[in-house]
Amino acid sequence: MSSSGATLLQLTAELVDIPSVSHHEDGVATFVAGALGDADHLVTTRIGNNVVSRTSLDRSRRLLIAGHLDTVPPNGNERAVLDDDRCAGLGSADMKGGVAVMIELAKRAVAPVVDLTYVWYACEEVDQRYSGLIEIERAEAYLLVADAAVLAEPTSGVVEAGCQGVLRIAVRLGGERAHTARSWMGVNAIHRLGLLLDLVDGFDARMPKLDGCEYRESLQAVRVDGGVANNVVPDEVRLVLNHRYAPDRTKDQAFEAICELLSPVIDKELGDQVDLEDFSLAAAPNLDDPLLAALVAASGSAPRGKLGWTDVSYFSARGVPAANFGPGNPQLSHTAGEWIGRDDLELVLASFEKLVSNQP
Amino acid sequence: MSSSGATLLQLTAELVDIPSVSHHEDGVATFVAGALGDADHLVTTRIGNNVVSRTSLDRSRRLLIAGHLDTVPPNGNERAVLDDDRCAGLGSADMKGGVAVMIELAKRAVAPVVDLTYVWYACEEVDQRYSGLIEIERAEAYLLVADAAVLAEPTSGVVEAGCQGVLRIAVRLGGERAHTARSWMGVNAIHRLGLLLDLVDGFDARMPKLDGCEYRESLQAVRVDGGVANNVVPDEVRLVLNHRYAPDRTKDQAFEAICELLSPVIDKELGDQVDLEDFSLAAAPNLDDPLLAALVAASGSAPRGKLGWTDVSYFSARGVPAANFGPGNPQLSHTAGEWIGRDDLELVLASFEKLVSNQP
Repeated sequence: MSSSGATLLQLTAELVDIPSVSHHEDGVATFVAGALGDADHLVTTRIGNNVVSRTSLDRSRRLLIAGHLDTVPPNGNERAVLDDDRCAGLGSADMKGGVAVMIELAKRAVAPVVDLTYVWYACEEVDQRYSGLIEIERAEAYLLVADAAVLAEPTSGVVEAGCQGVLRIAVRLGGERAHTARSWMGVNAIHRLGLLLDLVDGFDARMPKLDGCEYRESLQAVRVDGGVANNVVPDEVRLVLNHRYAPDRTKDQAFEAICELLSPVIDKELGDQVDLEDFSLAAAPNLDDPLLAALVAASGSAPRGKLGWTDVSYFSARGVPAANFGPGNPQLSHTAGEWIGRDDLELVLASFEKLVSNQP
Repeated sequence: MSSSGATLLQLTAELVDIPSVSHHEDGVATFVAGALGDADHLVTTRIGNNVVSRTSLDRSRRLLIAGHLDTVPPNGNERAVLDDDRCAGLGSADMKGGVAVMIELAKRAVAPVVDLTYVWYACEEVDQRYSGLIEIERAEAYLLVADAAVLAEPTSGVVEAGCQGVLRIAVRLGGERAHTARSWMGVNAIHRLGLLLDLVDGFDARMPKLDGCEYRESLQAVRVDGGVANNVVPDEVRLVLNHRYAPDRTKDQAFEAICELLSPVIDKELGDQVDLEDFSLAAAPNLDDPLLAALVAASGSAPRGKLGWTDVSYFSARGVPAANFGPGNPQLSHTAGEWIGRDDLELVLASFEKLVSNQP
């Protein structure tokens, strides 16, 4: 093992030990700014609990690398547990390991072949309106200008391209009330839900390949709620669906497809409704972008599609091709047993160093 | 029209105009006791908001006629609206019309061929533990002794025999949590509900005939609730079922039948559970009882099975054959437009008078 692995693991542990649940990133932002020291090749700006650090080498292209500083609330895992090979603890994988890699890269890459912007930001784990990216954009939008962006979210050191979009769809099924002793005089909205759930469960997930990456859509019922009283045939039930759609569709096309799927059950005369309550846009993989193509090459692994949603969508929506690439197993995110491995940290740092040393 | 119809309609209107939502029957109990006056042939006892009035003629049989004094909460229908043919207003059908018939019968039947007990009681429309019948039983159990009982609940002047039992069954379906972007790693409890609801909706209702009365069972989902968060495959959903079962089954047999119906979906390894949360016993029609047979004859109509639940069950569980027979359309109970007709009041009073004049 090289010493960089030990350094990164130690740095991750220090970061885990600074509590930074969303909206409380002050301490960790101060730590990050301090860790950069007085490096001559960087200009560092703090905006709220966000830290932006940039080179200004007049390179033809600028790469932005972003990582969030906040964590979800603790789950008995507040303190870092460190051994030679791994660091466990809240946010270790999602994504203080990535933050550590970014700090180390920022210190080491004094003469990169592309200009670099590092963005450590607050409030990624909560409603998007609190996002540190939006706070920076409002204060100093030029700080986010770049030709491509990488989110150092946990991807186990594989480039995860683009991201799937998310729709939150509220379905309301109606019925007609009746006494349960004379149930045939009513229409039971909860019974009607059975047919609707069968359609949802039978959703034929598309798996399109885009730029060589497969996306796997999903449709999941995530909340249900209905009923009037124990002796009343209920006339209303509410179901919330979560739909992940691949980036070859617009949000409107994705919503239309779900409405079509549900249409055999939907009966407007019973007051049924299907509403798009919230959405996050999908982002195309954009792997033909030279910086992202170089990132894939530097990673040494075939890219794959990102099935979850990340701030790749934020940059993509602003015309900046973006991908996810960072240390840590994404499936450990938000679990009590979250941890990150030394190998992974080292691999991702080495890939970034390679990327910024070779002309794309 | 005889004058008795006008009297009964007027009396019903007076009763409607005395508010008596459950737990607030003091005024109406006082009115009933007062309306009986100082009749020599009756001994009247008041216990709480309940009034019991009895003849003591040493007849070989005693018939008990019961009616509740309480109503459900008002729905813009607090005041009686009276015309020549009907009285509308809160509780008119359920069951101040029946209370009026009982008062009139008690005054008129000075020399019945059977001894008579009239029970006007409180708190029928709320949880059974508040029932005035239980309050009377605890204070003076002998007041409820009888060979047969009639509940003067609204039945449109037809004997409704026995009553169906009610089970409240709570079903808990389990699953395995996962992120919705990787939904195939979990088991969606709400999706599993689809299959369960299909079984519930496909319930093949038994319609057994007992003593010539048909009972029609039902199984209805009345409440549903589940979900963790908008991006989490849910691992739990709760469903409440209301089952009405015919009196040819015990509650245990009825519960067993539902467990059997649901068994194709129930998976104990996923933590599924089916629990009997509450029940009200069914009551057999008992139309071979001489007093109830005489009631059917006096009513002039073929009897039918009672599909809802009434305090017939209370008497039946204590070995007293009981049936429902009273004025008013049961389907108007608890509706804002509730009303009762003069014809109905008259018919039921006449049937009772016939019954108590002829040796059974």
